Amino acid sequence: MLDVCLMGCGGSMPKPDRWLSSAIMRLEGKSVVIDCGEGTQLAMKEAGFAFKSVGVILITHFHADHVSGLPGFLLSMGNEGRTDPVLIAGPRGISRVVRSLCVVAPDLPFEVEILEIPREGGSFSRDGFDVETVEASHTCPCFGYRIRINRAGKFDPEKAESNGVPLKYWNRLQHGETVTDGDLVFTPDLVLGPPRRGITVSYVVDTRPLPGMAKAVEGSDLLIIEGMFGEEKRERAEKSMHMTMAEAARIARDAGAEKVWLTHFSPSVPDPGEFIGEARAIFPAAEPGEDGMKTTLFFREDGESDE
Amino acid sequence: MLDVCLMGCGGSMPKPDRWLSSAIMRLEGKSVVIDCGEGTQLAMKEAGFAFKSVGVILITHFHADHVSGLPGFLLSMGNEGRTDPVLIAGPRGISRVVRSLCVVAPDLPFEVEILEIPREGGSFSRDGFDVETVEASHTCPCFGYRIRINRAGKFDPEKAESNGVPLKYWNRLQHGETVTDGDLVFTPDLVLGPPRRGITVSYVVDTRPLPGMAKAVEGSDLLIIEGMFGEEKRERAEKSMHMTMAEAARIARDAGAEKVWLTHFSPSVPDPGEFIGEARAIFPAAEPGEDGMKTTLFFREDGESDE
Repeated sequence: MLDVCLMGCGGSMPKPDRWLSSAIMRLEGKSVVIDCGEGTQLAMKEAGFAFKSVGVILITHFHADHVSGLPGFLLSMGNEGRTDPVLIAGPRGISRVVRSLCVVAPDLPFEVEILEIPREGGSFSRDGFDVETVEASHTCPCFGYRIRINRAGKFDPEKAESNGVPLKYWNRLQHGETVTDGDLVFTPDLVLGPPRRGITVSYVVDTRPLPGMAKAVEGSDLLIIEGMFGEEKRERAEKSMHMTMAEAARIARDAGAEKVWLTHFSPSVPDPGEFIGEARAIFPAAEPGEDGMKTTLFFREDGESDE
Repeated sequence: MLDVCLMGCGGSMPKPDRWLSSAIMRLEGKSVVIDCGEGTQLAMKEAGFAFKSVGVILITHFHADHVSGLPGFLLSMGNEGRTDPVLIAGPRGISRVVRSLCVVAPDLPFEVEILEIPREGGSFSRDGFDVETVEASHTCPCFGYRIRINRAGKFDPEKAESNGVPLKYWNRLQHGETVTDGDLVFTPDLVLGPPRRGITVSYVVDTRPLPGMAKAVEGSDLLIIEGMFGEEKRERAEKSMHMTMAEAARIARDAGAEKVWLTHFSPSVPDPGEFIGEARAIFPAAEPGEDGMKTTLFFREDGESDE
């Protein structure tokens, strides 16, 4: 199961009553954080997640409201005792941005690995999270992210037998291990059925809608997506390269998303609930994000035995 | 009159219920801010001061809790319409720190002037504030600051007459103007009595007590000073180069301070009031700082006519 929390739902500037947009996902004690503006470490404390668990920080782009909280966040991770490396990934230039901001966090007790994702996007895996970029169109290079938790196939004793796998290796293979026995190599696929449906969460902010966007976030169990304004400010959204709630809802609908949380609300929108009807007319399950909003996503066949 | 607000009173790390230590002083619509950790822009919004008014930002040192909020703070100043230059002053190296942090605030609508104060300290004047460094001893180069609002002498018509100043210039000279009349230059001191007592506010954090410190903040109408721990953690204070409340109170007493606000409380001290007795045994007027604590300081003879 995957715990997800929208730690903040604000855009542009932090407000005393609204943290800047960022999210955390936790899988078996390991976490991925997306975006880290000023105050995200406080939003995370309020949400009750452990800093030490964070192995990956994804940055959508380099506007201050998405990244300027990094030094304080990393220092808090160190204070909490993290010593394992941390991977920070973002568009090209992330290395310079992280190194610059960390001028005030020079002595971290863990290694910071930095992944510069090329302009055309990319994917990588870490800690059980498969991360893929989603193309975005903002005033500067920006990525959305689609994060997948893959799930191996079900154990299939008949397949194991027909593949001639010795009984003594079944258990280890079933749990993902590859076993070598002399010249023979046994891989998990010899005892497992086809991969099962995993869990997919997508996070897309600071972008205009793009034709390929719905496809890129297709089948998301949870889509966290920018709905910065109501339709009344559509023109402002277009000019500043952001999305309205209705535009976000169209992407959610076309992507066949399960749950949808709107986020990155403009400081000029004190109550996003005022415009949620515009999104629900298109995608009825759309919810206005709130700081600290949480859910737990389960694999579809949870409750069934894997044995 | 001078408005002063302790916007935050926390040290090391911001907490959901305590902003990081910083202060603002406002004189006739112009403000000086001291220190700018993560969240200071929010503390300032809560305290109700205008970003646009800030002409000077003093940084005590480069630990993240004193400086990492700068990019967001400067962006908020720009959003509020500041176009006049802003002076940021701090220990040597401030230029590199500000330029590095501002990698995420590249297009500010005002000029940022940076003043690197030499190791031995220094002084400068801006917007009616006379700023002087106070020597500090921390784990990195650090300054306290003493800020004085000077007050000219009282208008003295007898002196004006005996100095042969033409009556028509009295008013302009009285208001601080220097007047040239052909070859003659008339300066304000020709019509004014000796300078009167001004207002002095000092701000000293992140330091061990030093022998010259009381002298350096002598006669402060308000001394904002670090009392990071109670005496129970004196050893920890010594090791980490901070001060206890009692140590701060001794400086306040020796300096003959009027009001004293303790600040920069350790996250491990949830209720500084618990230890305030230790400070009050030495300096009875010591007050534990609180986020948003305000006072207005008046010139001593306020209410008298200057005419």
